[in-house]
Amino acid sequence: MALSRGRRSQRSHRSNQGINQLAKAPLVHPWAPVEALSPDQLDAVHEASIKILENLGISVLGSHAISLFEKHGAKVEQIDGNEALVKLTRRMIEAAVASSPERFVLNAPNPANNIEIGGNQIHFGLVSGPPNVHDCINGRRVGNFADYQTLIKLGQFFNAIDFFGNQAIAPTDLPVGTRHLDTALCNLTLADKPFLVTGIGAGRVLDAMQLMAIYHGKQLDELRDFPCVMTNINVNSPRKLDDAMAYSAMQMAYYGQPVVVTPFTLMGAMTPATLPAALAQQNAEALFGVVLTQLVRPGAQVVYGGFTSNVDMRSGAPAFGTPENSLANIAGGQLARRYGLPYRTSACNAANVVDAQAAYETQMAMWGATLGHGNLIYHAAGWLEGGLVASFEKLVLDVEMIQHMKSMLAPRSFAAEEFGFDAMEEVGAGGHFFGCEHTMARYQTAFYSPILSDWQNHENWVMAGEKTATERATALWQHALAHYTPPSVSADIFDAMNAYVAKRKAALGSDEPNFVPDFIPAG
Amino acid sequence: MALSRGRRSQRSHRSNQGINQLAKAPLVHPWAPVEALSPDQLDAVHEASIKILENLGISVLGSHAISLFEKHGAKVEQIDGNEALVKLTRRMIEAAVASSPERFVLNAPNPANNIEIGGNQIHFGLVSGPPNVHDCINGRRVGNFADYQTLIKLGQFFNAIDFFGNQAIAPTDLPVGTRHLDTALCNLTLADKPFLVTGIGAGRVLDAMQLMAIYHGKQLDELRDFPCVMTNINVNSPRKLDDAMAYSAMQMAYYGQPVVVTPFTLMGAMTPATLPAALAQQNAEALFGVVLTQLVRPGAQVVYGGFTSNVDMRSGAPAFGTPENSLANIAGGQLARRYGLPYRTSACNAANVVDAQAAYETQMAMWGATLGHGNLIYHAAGWLEGGLVASFEKLVLDVEMIQHMKSMLAPRSFAAEEFGFDAMEEVGAGGHFFGCEHTMARYQTAFYSPILSDWQNHENWVMAGEKTATERATALWQHALAHYTPPSVSADIFDAMNAYVAKRKAALGSDEPNFVPDFIPAG
Repeated sequence: MALSRGRRSQRSHRSNQGINQLAKAPLVHPWAPVEALSPDQLDAVHEASIKILENLGISVLGSHAISLFEKHGAKVEQIDGNEALVKLTRRMIEAAVASSPERFVLNAPNPANNIEIGGNQIHFGLVSGPPNVHDCINGRRVGNFADYQTLIKLGQFFNAIDFFGNQAIAPTDLPVGTRHLDTALCNLTLADKPFLVTGIGAGRVLDAMQLMAIYHGKQLDELRDFPCVMTNINVNSPRKLDDAMAYSAMQMAYYGQPVVVTPFTLMGAMTPATLPAALAQQNAEALFGVVLTQLVRPGAQVVYGGFTSNVDMRSGAPAFGTPENSLANIAGGQLARRYGLPYRTSACNAANVVDAQAAYETQMAMWGATLGHGNLIYHAAGWLEGGLVASFEKLVLDVEMIQHMKSMLAPRSFAAEEFGFDAMEEVGAGGHFFGCEHTMARYQTAFYSPILSDWQNHENWVMAGEKTATERATALWQHALAHYTPPSVSADIFDAMNAYVAKRKAALGSDEPNFVPDFIPAG
Repeated sequence: MALSRGRRSQRSHRSNQGINQLAKAPLVHPWAPVEALSPDQLDAVHEASIKILENLGISVLGSHAISLFEKHGAKVEQIDGNEALVKLTRRMIEAAVASSPERFVLNAPNPANNIEIGGNQIHFGLVSGPPNVHDCINGRRVGNFADYQTLIKLGQFFNAIDFFGNQAIAPTDLPVGTRHLDTALCNLTLADKPFLVTGIGAGRVLDAMQLMAIYHGKQLDELRDFPCVMTNINVNSPRKLDDAMAYSAMQMAYYGQPVVVTPFTLMGAMTPATLPAALAQQNAEALFGVVLTQLVRPGAQVVYGGFTSNVDMRSGAPAFGTPENSLANIAGGQLARRYGLPYRTSACNAANVVDAQAAYETQMAMWGATLGHGNLIYHAAGWLEGGLVASFEKLVLDVEMIQHMKSMLAPRSFAAEEFGFDAMEEVGAGGHFFGCEHTMARYQTAFYSPILSDWQNHENWVMAGEKTATERATALWQHALAHYTPPSVSADIFDAMNAYVAKRKAALGSDEPNFVPDFIPAG
């Protein structure tokens, strides 16, 4: 073979002029979703989950949620004044599934960034939730608001990121009761992509909706026909829905804002140590949350969430990107489609460092999530240490891996001229196609051009400092921050949002926001 | 979430007792293969490839091959005495496709390692071909026979490896004309898994078949009904089949040994810079090789090979594990199945070091290869630097990634007891499943247990030396070599094989083995 590897890299030259990333574009999956479970297996999971909901029930905290279930026919077994075991009927579940929309548009701060959630549209989200943050220059540190802002800037800069999860990291240097105001304001001023707000109690999501109303020049009530902010609630598996989660979901559904319901089903710890059991429990818990939203408002936008992975049975440590996790990501999609619900999954890993393990675990999870037609793929950029750390280098690595996926699945022409018959005739047997007209007309866009991969030959790679992908990622996030530009927000809106935040901070002081919904659930 | 990450790792303790790898088992893919190309696109590729074979032809070196094509109806345009442009008829192609078997068993030295090639059986092969070798202790060096032996030992040790490719590395310290004898003898004494021999001229593969006959206690002629060694020939794309490749394929087919035909179609260099053109050219070149084997012996075992990737259009460097490569791996499977042929593909990368890039590029290629139902996935363990290096650490990393894939696709019970309903009732809402009977009965085998992944928590990981996956891989290949045991070979056979090698070396001296087949092609 006559080719030399990387005659002369032009990468270092090119990188001075900016990162040549993929243009912003939604991924519309062109392949049929993979059917990893047989129809019989899928039926068995469904029936087992109905059995769980009818016979074992879900423990619910919060009298407003409990009474809502009871009023609509659930069997309620009171545990104490604020907790009850709630058992659903098959009819309640079927009705909720029937009234939930199959797809909807989440309006972004910038309409160019709106995302359609459902069908075969796949969207990748930034990491959310870690208590710590890491990069190879500043090391590992506790989550803080400065790094939160940096993560939002990086998520805004990289086109591969379609949305922001609940909170990129916990800004632990801000007061607990008001940090949701700071983070929402940050997402609305440093970025213009769709984002989720933390669903802990009704007051926090109400604040976020008030800010969205100001941003979009609407009244709160007008948001009902304008989904523009989303939250994710977790079921505390096994089978426990707490009031903080229930009330935020109810509040969101009431004002027409979408809710993602994600059971936290780590096999061996929160579920039995088998995939069938975990999927059945995940399905029961997710459907339970779906029912809650539909009881508040039939037709409320709700997303089926799956987060089934396993623990290390020797240590109890959570593991991600495992074979079981990847398979569960695919199977979760089959279940969501069975009910005609959009599907949220994730692309996680449990590595301690941005190394080959971080890459292969994330790839396992990301392929499963993509093949399963995950409409929202959470934690797709920046997640490390099983979710205990948001990593800047991992974020860059993940952007590269997302771009690989998006590029592989991009539309591709098979028109006659693409077959290059004339070029083959021109080049002849044993020649090469480097300089022929067919190649020259296409060479700039023919193939995906990576931002992180280094294809220099060994000699040049050594001369360039023998940098690993992780070391190269450090340069890339620094470059991204240097070239980040904030979106424009009109001065009026900017001032009005800041005034709202100031007013709320003054009102709250060091208190928690209101916990219960601002409405009395309908009977 | 109440779990701690990796309370106390038991890994260091366990690793003293051996590597807890997956048991040897063939991967029988339970999912339908992915259909990345539409039926129309597939038809267009097929028709374009027929047009190439009928109108442009393939340049063939070697009068024995040329005359064989001519005798069976090909249009031959002589270029010089030893080279001609050979144009096939559609009928010749259809006849060859019809007579090629859909699947066959390749008999291994140890019958327990036999592999069935075809259908949905997926087999992973060790790296083959690199001129260099690398590990993190001894650094980068030129291929040599000591390292060749080490690679065969590692391939034998790890159950994830199902077969050996042509030559793990080039043993450049051995004479060119006889090294094929040393390497074949090495594969038959240090390992007992199926292997391929280098297909450069007829004499080399004939020597390998003679050794196999001795090993299996058969006469050469008796191998006709006993496929037990295989070769891979490359078409020198674009559209050139040289005599060294043609004659080895003819010799193998004559004695009933399988041939893999793999066009070397790097888009932008050896094909036009589009996937449709590359697939059409790959298809034409692969079918051309299929026809050759069937002209020698209708019913000869032949495998459709695909190796379509792209070059870096800025430098001309080959790239692997790209989005285009992954997609081509899937599409290649669609084409092979269209003709009812077994399919060979690969899992390569172009990284310079065993880092996150090496992992994600390999994952991209490996997922494509597996989803495409690649019956033989070449270079699945140890390939680095675009094939210029065989890496011991990469080999370990790849074994881990293959085990992930095999484990995800392993059969899984959905029987009633797997749903753990009683365990859910026993544990109750909000409890945990660590100690319950259902878990205790399964905890040792419930989940895949990785050999390379480190799931300790951050604190323990730091105390253990902050090792990356690549650093941990160094310890693992050393451990594997320390625990490697050679298969048993009877003294008689061992002596007979050595005597054959000694006799042949004496006969060859510093000459090349016979180049042309030992038969006159049938008219």
